[in-house]
Amino acid sequence: MTTEATTAAVSAQDIADGVRAHELDREHVFHSWQAQGPFTPMTILKAEGSYVWDGEGNKLLDLSSQLVNTNIGHQHPKVVAAIQEQAGKLCTIAPQHVNDARSEAARLIAELTPGDLNHVFFTNGGADAVEHAIRMARLHTGKHKVLAAYRSYHGGTQLAVNVTGDPRRFANDHSDSGVVHFMPAYGYRSYFASTTEAEETERALRHLEDMIVLEGASNIGALILESIPGTAGIYMPPAGYMAGVRELTRKYGIVFIADEVMAGFGRSGKWFSINHWDITPDLITFAKGVNSGYVPLGGVAISDAIFETFRDRAYPGGLTYSGHPLACAAAVATIEAMKEEGMVENSARLGEDIIGPALRAMAAKHPSVGDVRGAGCFWAVELVKNRETREPLAPYGGSSPEMNQVVGALKAEGILPFANFNRIHVVPALNISDEDLLTGLAALDKALDVADGFVEA
Amino acid sequence: MTTEATTAAVSAQDIADGVRAHELDREHVFHSWQAQGPFTPMTILKAEGSYVWDGEGNKLLDLSSQLVNTNIGHQHPKVVAAIQEQAGKLCTIAPQHVNDARSEAARLIAELTPGDLNHVFFTNGGADAVEHAIRMARLHTGKHKVLAAYRSYHGGTQLAVNVTGDPRRFANDHSDSGVVHFMPAYGYRSYFASTTEAEETERALRHLEDMIVLEGASNIGALILESIPGTAGIYMPPAGYMAGVRELTRKYGIVFIADEVMAGFGRSGKWFSINHWDITPDLITFAKGVNSGYVPLGGVAISDAIFETFRDRAYPGGLTYSGHPLACAAAVATIEAMKEEGMVENSARLGEDIIGPALRAMAAKHPSVGDVRGAGCFWAVELVKNRETREPLAPYGGSSPEMNQVVGALKAEGILPFANFNRIHVVPALNISDEDLLTGLAALDKALDVADGFVEA
Ligand SMILES: Cc1ncc(COP(=O)(O)O)c(C=O)c1O
Ligand SMILES: Cc1ncc(COP(=O)(O)O)c(C=O)c1O
Repeated sequence: MTTEATTAAVSAQDIADGVRAHELDREHVFHSWQAQGPFTPMTILKAEGSYVWDGEGNKLLDLSSQLVNTNIGHQHPKVVAAIQEQAGKLCTIAPQHVNDARSEAARLIAELTPGDLNHVFFTNGGADAVEHAIRMARLHTGKHKVLAAYRSYHGGTQLAVNVTGDPRRFANDHSDSGVVHFMPAYGYRSYFASTTEAEETERALRHLEDMIVLEGASNIGALILESIPGTAGIYMPPAGYMAGVRELTRKYGIVFIADEVMAGFGRSGKWFSINHWDITPDLITFAKGVNSGYVPLGGVAISDAIFETFRDRAYPGGLTYSGHPLACAAAVATIEAMKEEGMVENSARLGEDIIGPALRAMAAKHPSVGDVRGAGCFWAVELVKNRETREPLAPYGGSSPEMNQVVGALKAEGILPFANFNRIHVVPALNISDEDLLTGLAALDKALDVADGFVEA
Repeated sequence: MTTEATTAAVSAQDIADGVRAHELDREHVFHSWQAQGPFTPMTILKAEGSYVWDGEGNKLLDLSSQLVNTNIGHQHPKVVAAIQEQAGKLCTIAPQHVNDARSEAARLIAELTPGDLNHVFFTNGGADAVEHAIRMARLHTGKHKVLAAYRSYHGGTQLAVNVTGDPRRFANDHSDSGVVHFMPAYGYRSYFASTTEAEETERALRHLEDMIVLEGASNIGALILESIPGTAGIYMPPAGYMAGVRELTRKYGIVFIADEVMAGFGRSGKWFSINHWDITPDLITFAKGVNSGYVPLGGVAISDAIFETFRDRAYPGGLTYSGHPLACAAAVATIEAMKEEGMVENSARLGEDIIGPALRAMAAKHPSVGDVRGAGCFWAVELVKNRETREPLAPYGGSSPEMNQVVGALKAEGILPFANFNRIHVVPALNISDEDLLTGLAALDKALDVADGFVEA
């Protein structure tokens, strides 16, 4: 394809280096969530803004934000400069010391989080943020059980994958982790036979309260819930649901952990997705967007009340790289760039003015589209074989030749997509240009023609 | 103290900024392993080579390598430059793609690890490396139980802290994690009433085999052991012990995980501490020294046999930042600098020619020294009130006013020390100058006078 782009951006030497990198990868790199043998990863030679260049030098429009983490796009010059500057100053220092980048990152995050979440424990990524949030909740309440939603993802370490409610948990679920799963509010495929949003809210909350009562409120220390479930399908909680969850957790003395690892930092058009409902959870877990993943960083924002529990009692947890200066400097620069450039507002605008209307138009036009939903730069398109039965184009937990063809069509159009089961997610950088976004949406529109071919007559 | 150093290295503005950073830290930063209230962290304004500057501009000699991770010292110019270059090129990319820095880091690590450990799964730090290594072992063997040593540290996430055998586990040990702990070979305070090294080896191995038989070899998937237990006291395994562990694990079909998070990458004078005994474990966990912690990175080196298990079967684990390009570029530069500058050989030399002889001389001179032991730049000095009874100067799992005074004396001498319970660890950068090292050892010698004051008459 685009020979100009190739010539301009990627040299023959780059391509040769990429071939060598690919060989070494297959020899020595063990990949996440993969059977290592049949796996043929794509080489990425270069990335800039909303674009990446593959191993052949093809320029692709990144509608995935990688794993929905590069909220500011690739290689944002302000953040790159901040990393380079901090690297020259101080790369690392142990967590027990005071470091200016760490202090400033904590201040900025505490300022952005709602209510009294004034304290920040830094981790390296999302999974360890979840692990530590659960530990804090258990020790704060003195109660061990954890409620988590089916159709959720909370990370790959043992406890984080135990609270996870998607198929990635299955192979890891053999120890008594103290986790109990409940049915989420997911209107399009209601677990409660609801036919309206109000019904879904009411029934899902009643189910949750039934679970609490039947498991024993006196045993349940934490409830963890993605503010907007991400990988599982970006389904917006129905009106009133999150407020209801906040009420129930308060009523039963359960710490409410909002997992904002994917949904936070402007992804859905607010700094945190929980802001859509004006709720303050007791703990927020974050990672990804906090510094767009430029340097590994995650963390837990902690309420004053939970902080008090650990004022005089040691918190029994930690890690060598907690509050890593280089990672924190990247967070400071990322948050400042997001503010200066109005990226969160832009995310909201793109969702309202461009992505939402475009996806709804595609839903009207393509019989393969079962549902579209989302906010900001956080959208899912659910593909079905049949709009009446809502039979998905790939089964829960799996793929299908049909979905592979749709994804292939997107790639052929020069798109790097995010796909999961029977869904295509539209999750671009929050600062993608309107023009690029429209190009990407046009490519999706075209790929949906392929999906339409699989709709039952 | 050192007014010249202050003037030269740290400005009045730096100091004022440090005061502000300290205030913000106390307001917003939640620290690892601490009661947050009484904690008064030290501010670090600057670090270079084997030195750091505290909040008042005092220059301190870093004999801690922070949390025993800055093996190449602070701000090594080659690694700083490599980070800056990679930041300008490509900070991050999702783990499912091929990236040249990741490929090259995996190649270099596979080349350094013993035997057929030819595959590398990258994580963000040590704890998640341990979590994933255990998962691989369980799935490879189909067996769930894990054997781990008392007096060990393996990380802060739930499963990692469950295999941990030091007091940090206590507050977290309420779920059925499938972990069983055995007594380590620790000659100075033998758990087997041994009086010679040979006896310790024989009895510790018999104990381990007894444990395997009594727990049921058919249930045990993994044994995890620090090649040289670090935080717990840098006690060198007695001759023959590690070979015996390798034999027993092979005999009973147990995956042998050597945890080299602290002991690896030259710390003890070999690339990996397991090299002291010419043994190939099935998995090696690493972090810290792999890139001196300049960017968060850890991982698991994987044998061909375990790789085969996941050739056609998906490995059910992963993380957003697996094989992070910036972290991997720092690893490549670190390993290259270590090779070019002969740091591993230097570590061995410092241990043999300087630290070992100096510490043995101190042991001869100071009645408060119960034991000194180590290799390379990895040494412990165990302080006692009484050499006969070996009563420690602080209890297991705690501190004491006496130890606080010894640590205070070291700091007054301009040393940033690593202390744990009744021990002072001498764990400098592998490239510390002989002169600086001698200065540090002289300061230790002086501080031991304070310790001698607590020895029972
Ligand atoms: C909601 C949520 N929580 C936690 C995680 C785990 O984060 P990490 O991959 O950094 O461990 C993810 C990752 O996708 C996530 O989406
Ligand atoms: C032997 C060992 N394993 C694992 C860890 C955990 O590493 P991290 O703090 O990076 O999670 C440590 C940390 O000190 C360690 O010494």
